[in-house]
Amino acid sequence: MIIVMKPQAKQESIQRIKNIIESKGLDAHISAGKEVTIIGVVGDKTKLQDQNLEIFEDVEKIVAVTESYKLANKKFHPDPSIVKVGNVEIGGKTVVIMSGPCAIESKEQLLITAHAIKKAGAHILRGGAYKPRTSPYAFQGLEEEGLKFMKEAREETGLPVICEVTSLNAIEAAVKYVDMLQIGARNMQNFYLLKEAGKTGLPVLLKRGLSATIDEWLNASEYIISEGNPNVVLCERGIRTFETATRNTLDLSAVPVIKEKSHLPIIVDPSHATGVRAYVKPLSMGAIATGADGLMIETHPNPSCALSDGPQSLTFEQFEKLTQELRPLIEIMGKSL
Amino acid sequence: MIIVMKPQAKQESIQRIKNIIESKGLDAHISAGKEVTIIGVVGDKTKLQDQNLEIFEDVEKIVAVTESYKLANKKFHPDPSIVKVGNVEIGGKTVVIMSGPCAIESKEQLLITAHAIKKAGAHILRGGAYKPRTSPYAFQGLEEEGLKFMKEAREETGLPVICEVTSLNAIEAAVKYVDMLQIGARNMQNFYLLKEAGKTGLPVLLKRGLSATIDEWLNASEYIISEGNPNVVLCERGIRTFETATRNTLDLSAVPVIKEKSHLPIIVDPSHATGVRAYVKPLSMGAIATGADGLMIETHPNPSCALSDGPQSLTFEQFEKLTQELRPLIEIMGKSL
Amino acid sequence: MIIVMKPQAKQESIQRIKNIIESKGLDAHISAGKEVTIIGVVGDKTKLQDQNLEIFEDVEKIVAVTESYKLANKKFHPDPSIVKVGNVEIGGKTVVIMSGPCAIESKEQLLITAHAIKKAGAHILRGGAYKPRTSPYAFQGLEEEGLKFMKEAREETGLPVICEVTSLNAIEAAVKYVDMLQIGARNMQNFYLLKEAGKTGLPVLLKRGLSATIDEWLNASEYIISEGNPNVVLCERGIRTFETATRNTLDLSAVPVIKEKSHLPIIVDPSHATGVRAYVKPLSMGAIATGADGLMIETHPNPSCALSDGPQSLTFEQFEKLTQELRPLIEIMGKSL
Amino acid sequence: MIIVMKPQAKQESIQRIKNIIESKGLDAHISAGKEVTIIGVVGDKTKLQDQNLEIFEDVEKIVAVTESYKLANKKFHPDPSIVKVGNVEIGGKTVVIMSGPCAIESKEQLLITAHAIKKAGAHILRGGAYKPRTSPYAFQGLEEEGLKFMKEAREETGLPVICEVTSLNAIEAAVKYVDMLQIGARNMQNFYLLKEAGKTGLPVLLKRGLSATIDEWLNASEYIISEGNPNVVLCERGIRTFETATRNTLDLSAVPVIKEKSHLPIIVDPSHATGVRAYVKPLSMGAIATGADGLMIETHPNPSCALSDGPQSLTFEQFEKLTQELRPLIEIMGKSL
Repeated sequence: MIIVMKPQAKQESIQRIKNIIESKGLDAHISAGKEVTIIGVVGDKTKLQDQNLEIFEDVEKIVAVTESYKLANKKFHPDPSIVKVGNVEIGGKTVVIMSGPCAIESKEQLLITAHAIKKAGAHILRGGAYKPRTSPYAFQGLEEEGLKFMKEAREETGLPVICEVTSLNAIEAAVKYVDMLQIGARNMQNFYLLKEAGKTGLPVLLKRGLSATIDEWLNASEYIISEGNPNVVLCERGIRTFETATRNTLDLSAVPVIKEKSHLPIIVDPSHATGVRAYVKPLSMGAIATGADGLMIETHPNPSCALSDGPQSLTFEQFEKLTQELRPLIEIMGKSL
Repeated sequence: MIIVMKPQAKQESIQRIKNIIESKGLDAHISAGKEVTIIGVVGDKTKLQDQNLEIFEDVEKIVAVTESYKLANKKFHPDPSIVKVGNVEIGGKTVVIMSGPCAIESKEQLLITAHAIKKAGAHILRGGAYKPRTSPYAFQGLEEEGLKFMKEAREETGLPVICEVTSLNAIEAAVKYVDMLQIGARNMQNFYLLKEAGKTGLPVLLKRGLSATIDEWLNASEYIISEGNPNVVLCERGIRTFETATRNTLDLSAVPVIKEKSHLPIIVDPSHATGVRAYVKPLSMGAIATGADGLMIETHPNPSCALSDGPQSLTFEQFEKLTQELRPLIEIMGKSL
Repeated sequence: MIIVMKPQAKQESIQRIKNIIESKGLDAHISAGKEVTIIGVVGDKTKLQDQNLEIFEDVEKIVAVTESYKLANKKFHPDPSIVKVGNVEIGGKTVVIMSGPCAIESKEQLLITAHAIKKAGAHILRGGAYKPRTSPYAFQGLEEEGLKFMKEAREETGLPVICEVTSLNAIEAAVKYVDMLQIGARNMQNFYLLKEAGKTGLPVLLKRGLSATIDEWLNASEYIISEGNPNVVLCERGIRTFETATRNTLDLSAVPVIKEKSHLPIIVDPSHATGVRAYVKPLSMGAIATGADGLMIETHPNPSCALSDGPQSLTFEQFEKLTQELRPLIEIMGKSL
Repeated sequence: MIIVMKPQAKQESIQRIKNIIESKGLDAHISAGKEVTIIGVVGDKTKLQDQNLEIFEDVEKIVAVTESYKLANKKFHPDPSIVKVGNVEIGGKTVVIMSGPCAIESKEQLLITAHAIKKAGAHILRGGAYKPRTSPYAFQGLEEEGLKFMKEAREETGLPVICEVTSLNAIEAAVKYVDMLQIGARNMQNFYLLKEAGKTGLPVLLKRGLSATIDEWLNASEYIISEGNPNVVLCERGIRTFETATRNTLDLSAVPVIKEKSHLPIIVDPSHATGVRAYVKPLSMGAIATGADGLMIETHPNPSCALSDGPQSLTFEQFEKLTQELRPLIEIMGKSL
């Protein structure tokens, strides 16, 4: 932590800050420049948590030097983590593809989808039973009934299944049926939900919030991990910007940034990021080439009648074509599908 | 709803869309231009909810004409709403000031604050018992104990009290102690929480999400109102932009926009928006001059030791000076403090 | 300047950085923490301009401590500047109102406007002769002919006149006719244009770029001032965000931020910021209450036929009503119209 | 164009709009819904340019149906364009790589770079002679002297050369020495400069503005093309968002969006987008996999002493390694280096 003093800071202001730091058992290193004086704080900064040094007289600003996330931090865990979902490993040599409908609409819809995506090479079945929708008048999901269909789909196909949870109720239901929990973008900083998801011990897919910095995203993952659950996979799904040609702006630079700052695996969801079916293939290619550990892609037996996000869903035929087209790219990345 | 067809759309594509619309009992008005054809849909659009016309052949885009929120919409409720919190009316002739600490730290801290802000002219005591913090290692709040202190503060001062809720647990505790619930920015699209807050019947302060459009914000309020609870007050608290001189960018244009689109009262929180104490006064002035129905301002007996958001908190002396300075402005706005 | 080293930085890496700093005649103060080491650089940092210390081995990041703008910086010029345009003073006790059409369309349009805004209390006539339009097919302005009309309007009414310039050609023409140059948002970082505007010695109104930070804005002003021209007035006119209810998001917090960081006057343009006539009054009120030194407001004899930005322009009647409504607010701010 | 009327719009308001439209020789198709009435306008909309229908009584909003750019629009030019720079074709089967220093510092620096990048497989030499810098105190470029070095580098290596221009002066100098002009992000809406660049007939690389929508970007290209110069190449280089882990946010979805909306080639600049050398490779991979027609990558003989943007520049060794790593990816995209 560095404290930057105002120009012409009084000597006694500097001394007062120094005293507070030392009274907490930390060291204060003073660098007095011609224009400004800075104070480097050496030691365990959590001891200063109840001191708001920013508002002491003559303090200009405080600059953080170390990240506030620890368990997700690559500095203290240099090797990449592999998260197991059923028998699927995310973060290893396989580019893991999760696919399925945005919303579970019926048993038939889900089972036919599960078989189709398995045939095309997908590893994990996704499906929404609790849908966070902008308007309360839009379809809100089948809830526990949908979860039961997920379990059946797993039994029929052997694919592990993942479902978004939006409340403690949903978590309590989901743990009975699914292999992985998803925290959606709108709940990325629903810290209560993160802790509860952490407590289940199930692997958690944590989507990035629409306006979350990468630093906040890793701090959110820290809420899950600090409950004793290291099985977190991150999912980039677009951030909110001024551009309207796509629903959100897919931030593929997040992939190498996460790889540099954290040991957690990261996958990419081009379907939600763009909201447009035609952009799913090029951005899936882009995601893999950038180093992503997997993809989440929406599919639907009949996208034109999907109750949620139809315009971005692929037909089974389109999805199978996509996985075939991804294959050579995955190979030159030294991975397999 | 308007459907814009692609240039050179085939006649059969246009006819197919027309047939679907009419098969749902709606009317399709076709305007064939030289470059493009548009189809105006007349009737109840909810009947088209399970049709994703965007992905039919030759469809370029769908343009929504009417807002998806109804109960919060001024079009169907032209008179401004007044929300009562205890005996305080928000949305009427009084500029309502809510004040108190970001986080409740102790009974003493809260009671001394309650008395001080009451003396300075504030109407409602705020205080956080459940704190959504970016890092799991930061102070998370006193939870139910803090709520009890809130109740005591109300009993001592007569001020109604408001507290943020972050989970169903928190709501269940809060209803026993407080007069108004707050949904924070990070939970603005935690639809489960919105519904539960709606069910309590208590007035709800709904803060705008960091990246929420005004349209999404009003849709979020619709989740509360559609549970039979019309007592919603909106709170603008800054949105996330590229600017870093302030913590967030306070969007004061939201005040007249909300006044035009909705009948709900709107207050402004300059403390969280800026994160800097020195900007609280000018932006409080700006908010009132723009037409806001109230303010939420953080105060603390000793900001330099506050466990949360100290740098933006005012001392009691600063707060009292502020309310005095606001008074002449409030009068020329035709309102009272 | 502070250099933050990576955790486990090698001692020789730290030493190498120290040597470079000292070889330039600066001092390096090393604070060795348990996790990281930081190096405070004391002395004239311009001596390090040709050294990219960020990419030396084991360097994590560089943190700037002092602003790169000097002449616009309040630290070195604590008293607020007053900029004279003709006999009008901006930055003093008068809230200065600039008004007129977005685009000059004819002599009649301009003269009738000049008289009307003068009668309503405006101080400076604005009008666009060189219009930067998104599409090349939109009306681009009358160019020098428009400037001549501006001069005539000044001669008839005595109001100083301001006109946007978009090229050296435009500057060379404008200096013959107008009292103040305007650099528009799209040209805020057209550094060539800034320098040329600086060289004229005329007062310059510098609009904030749509995605410019306040720091970049002040650096842009530095380009003008460093040509020996201190007569710069800043104009906040909305920044680009995700919100679409207004054309841009008016950042009124920029007013107190500028007042804290710089001595330059700042005015606000609510017409361009919102793009909606109905929002001009509330945001004009908000701007003045926040401490702005003036306003720029578009007016037009017949907004429904304006060749540019009609939807946000006020009629003369609306403008006169506005100035009357602003008067009491201006008075309680201790200023006059 | 579609005109959406307010709910309860008066019949005479609707009739008045209809009359105006028809008086201009266009057709008005009225669709009267239960809530709102919409009016479809059929015919040449430029005839309505001097009518601001938005502010007529009872008009809610105007929705544009067709894009304002024509010459850059794929609808009217379905085949992809190939732009020739010297003997290099951009937009065809070759992934074109432009490389070189951010700023030209000396003849030696430039020539050694030209030879090194040619050896590594690059096609075009880039180098900045006119540098738009945030601060006026930073190195501003060698200007015409730098251009002369560019010409020498071309003569020595045979590589075509590209240089940014920031003023008419710079254009007039550049046409004597370089093969392609670059318009930088800060000047994307410097419409005067766009027209002048268009008039030269030289191929132009148009970088996307930091806060430019794709629609605005294509409109900017229209300024160049409408001067009779169709040789425009677009360059995505990151947009401004709230994220700070990278300098800007590279918007790779722009690649497929441009491919769908326009026939112009598009290349990607990961160096400026990220500002971090370590992210250049993964995002170069991502760009090619997404379908980009080329890359612009900064190189420098000694990045730690570069006068501009050293931290993002690659050494020659790193650059050569990069082109080798890109090769297999380029091949599976069906292209060559």
